[in-house]
Amino acid sequence: MKNIRVVLMGCGGVGRQLLQHIVTCRSLHANQGIRLRVVGVCDSKSLVVAPDVFSMELSDHHLLEVCRLKLASSSLLTLTDSGECQVFSGSDLTKKIVDSAALLGKSTGLALVDCSASSETIGVLNRAVDLGCCVVLANKKPLTSKMEDYDKLVSQPRRIRHESTVGAGLPVIASLNRILSSGDPVHRIIGSLSGTLGYVMSEVEDGKPFSQVVKSAKSLGYTEPDPRDDLSGMDVARKALILARLLGRRLNLDSIKIESLYPEEMGPGVMSVEEFLCSGVLLLDKNIQERVYKASLNGNVLRYVCVIEGSRCEVGIQEIPKDSALGRLKGSDNVLEVYSRCYNEQPLVIQGAGAGNDTTAAGVLADILDLQDLFP
Amino acid sequence: MKNIRVVLMGCGGVGRQLLQHIVTCRSLHANQGIRLRVVGVCDSKSLVVAPDVFSMELSDHHLLEVCRLKLASSSLLTLTDSGECQVFSGSDLTKKIVDSAALLGKSTGLALVDCSASSETIGVLNRAVDLGCCVVLANKKPLTSKMEDYDKLVSQPRRIRHESTVGAGLPVIASLNRILSSGDPVHRIIGSLSGTLGYVMSEVEDGKPFSQVVKSAKSLGYTEPDPRDDLSGMDVARKALILARLLGRRLNLDSIKIESLYPEEMGPGVMSVEEFLCSGVLLLDKNIQERVYKASLNGNVLRYVCVIEGSRCEVGIQEIPKDSALGRLKGSDNVLEVYSRCYNEQPLVIQGAGAGNDTTAAGVLADILDLQDLFP
Repeated sequence: MKNIRVVLMGCGGVGRQLLQHIVTCRSLHANQGIRLRVVGVCDSKSLVVAPDVFSMELSDHHLLEVCRLKLASSSLLTLTDSGECQVFSGSDLTKKIVDSAALLGKSTGLALVDCSASSETIGVLNRAVDLGCCVVLANKKPLTSKMEDYDKLVSQPRRIRHESTVGAGLPVIASLNRILSSGDPVHRIIGSLSGTLGYVMSEVEDGKPFSQVVKSAKSLGYTEPDPRDDLSGMDVARKALILARLLGRRLNLDSIKIESLYPEEMGPGVMSVEEFLCSGVLLLDKNIQERVYKASLNGNVLRYVCVIEGSRCEVGIQEIPKDSALGRLKGSDNVLEVYSRCYNEQPLVIQGAGAGNDTTAAGVLADILDLQDLFP
Repeated sequence: MKNIRVVLMGCGGVGRQLLQHIVTCRSLHANQGIRLRVVGVCDSKSLVVAPDVFSMELSDHHLLEVCRLKLASSSLLTLTDSGECQVFSGSDLTKKIVDSAALLGKSTGLALVDCSASSETIGVLNRAVDLGCCVVLANKKPLTSKMEDYDKLVSQPRRIRHESTVGAGLPVIASLNRILSSGDPVHRIIGSLSGTLGYVMSEVEDGKPFSQVVKSAKSLGYTEPDPRDDLSGMDVARKALILARLLGRRLNLDSIKIESLYPEEMGPGVMSVEEFLCSGVLLLDKNIQERVYKASLNGNVLRYVCVIEGSRCEVGIQEIPKDSALGRLKGSDNVLEVYSRCYNEQPLVIQGAGAGNDTTAAGVLADILDLQDLFP
C-alpha cells in the first residue's frame, strides 16, 4: 500500500468537500493500492494535526468532525488535544506545518494542499517546495502573486498540480500540459472561465436587461455575496494569468487588460451592494443592450472572455461568432478553446461545469492521486 | 538529466511522426531535464537497435534515416550493422526486444511504444509488462483483444498510457482517468469518434446523397483505401471497447452491438472497392435520406456514435438533438460527452481533431513524458 500524506490548508466549501471525497473514496483508492493519510487540516486560525505525522494520521472521524465544525462556522479550537490529534493556533500553526514539511518532504513525501482563497499561504508553500514537498492548489492567489513566488512554486514542475485553479475540475491544465510537453506550441487561448459571467452574457443575449440578469444570478447563488466581485473581472483575470504563465509568458496581474462591467463610481468603496443592485446597475442596462444589438447585426454574440495570444493577455467583453463553441455557450458552463499546431483550424474545446465545490474538490483529489509516483 | 529509454514498434505514419517530434523537441525536453533515448525502432520485419541499449542510443541521424527509408517504403534492412546500430529480423527481432526489456525494465526503465496497427505486438507487450517496462499504445488492437490480455496490460495501471487509441491526441483517456480517480462515477459516455463518419453524417444532414459523400470523403483522404473499413463501424467499436473497459466493464468486441453502414452482401468478400463505390453504395442513398428526413421531423440529426451506459455498449447511427455538442458537430472533428456525478445535467465535452499523424504522435509523446516519474 502506497501512502500519500496530505496537509490541507483551508476548509471552506472546497476543503470540506475534499475531506468528504477522501473519506468516501477509501475503498476505491485501496483497490488502486493507495491510502491518503490526512495528517493535518487548518483554517486561517487553527491547525488540527496528528500527534506524530510520520506514523499517525487524522482518523476519518476527526476529518468529518472538522467538516461538521466548519459547516457550523465553529472554530477548530473546539477540538481538544488528545492522543489522536493536537490543535495549534497563531504563529505555532505555520511553524508546525513547516516542521511537518521538513520531517516528511524528503522521506515519506508530503502533499501540501491549498484550498483556501488567501495570499497568506504563499510563505508556507514556498518553504514546503524547498523542503521537497508536493503542492496542490485550488487557491489562485499563490500562482498570481509576484513572478518570483510563481517561479519558486513551479521550480519542481512535476511536484505541483493546480487543475482546480481554472475551470474547477475541468481538465484544462492537465490538457495544456500534455499539449506543451509534446512540443505542440499553443498560440491562442480563448475561453469563458466564469460561470457567473457566462450566465449573465448568455441571458442578456436573449434580450433581458443586464440589471435583471445580475439580480437573478445573485438570487440563484451564481454570484459572490457582492456581485461586483464577479463583475469586476478580477477572478477571470487571475485565471487568465495562470494560463498565460503556464504558456511561459512572464506577466503580472497588473499587466493584464481587464474590463470591469461596472464603472469605478459604482465600486464597493463608493456604494453598498444594495445601492448598486437597486439603482447603480440599472444605469448599465442601456449600454449593454446597445452592444448586444450591435453584435447581433454582425451575426455575433457578446461573451466575457479571456484571450491569450502572442503578447496579448486580456479579459473583457468580445464579439464572438454565434457559430463557435464560445458563441453557443448557454448557462453557467465554462468553455476553453485552444489553438495550436495540432489544433489549428478547429480548436481543441473543453467544456463543462466550471464551478461548484463538488467538481472543484474532485479536481483537487485527481491532482493528489496524479502525484502518486513521486511517493515512495 | 533524466533518461527515458524508448523502443518504438511500428514506423508507419504515426511512428515516423513520433520520431520526428522526438528529434525536434530535444531542446524543449532538455529544458525539462529529460532526454528521450530511442534505443530501438522496428517495423513488422526488422529491428534497428543500439548495440548496447544500456549505454547507447540511436542517433538522431539514424532516427531520421529510419523515417526516410519507411517513407520511401524501403526495408530497414538497408541500414547495415555498424558500431552505431544493429539490425535484426525474423524471430531474432522479438527476442532482441524481450532481451532489452529484461535488461532495462527494472533497472533504467524502458517504455515500449506501440504505434503499429497489428495484433502481433501483444505477446511482446505482455512480456514487457512482466519485465517491469512501461507501455505506451497508439495501437488499439492490444487493448481490444481477449480480456486476459487486457488485464495483463493494465495490471500495472501507472505504467500504461494509451491516449492516442481514442480521439488521437485529444485528452480523452487522461480526462476520464482523472474523473475516475477522484471517485466521480461516469454513468454515460456518448461520442463521435470517427472523423470519417463524423464528416459523412454531417454532410448527409445537409441533403447530399450518402454515395456522393462517401466518394468525396475518399477523395479528400478521410477514409481508408477501402471506405468500407470505416463504414463497417469496427474502428469505432474498438474505441468504444477501450472506453468501456476503462470504466471497468468486462466486455469483448463481439459483445458490442455494431451497426455497419453497408449490408453484408456489399462486403469486401463479395464486391471490389470499385464495384462498391460505382454501384453498391448508390443503393444505400434512399434509406439514409429517409432516416435523415425522419430525424429532422423530430428536430434531430443523425450521428454515428458510440454509447456506453450501464451494461449498454453500442456503436451506430442515433438521432441526436440538434442543439447538443454532438448535434452541432461539423466536419471531421471528434467529440465526446461524458456524464458523471460532477457533470450531470450538462456533460463534460471534449472536442477537436481526432485523427492525423501529427496529433496522434503528439498524444503518444505526451504519454511518454507523463511516465517520467517512473524513471530513475
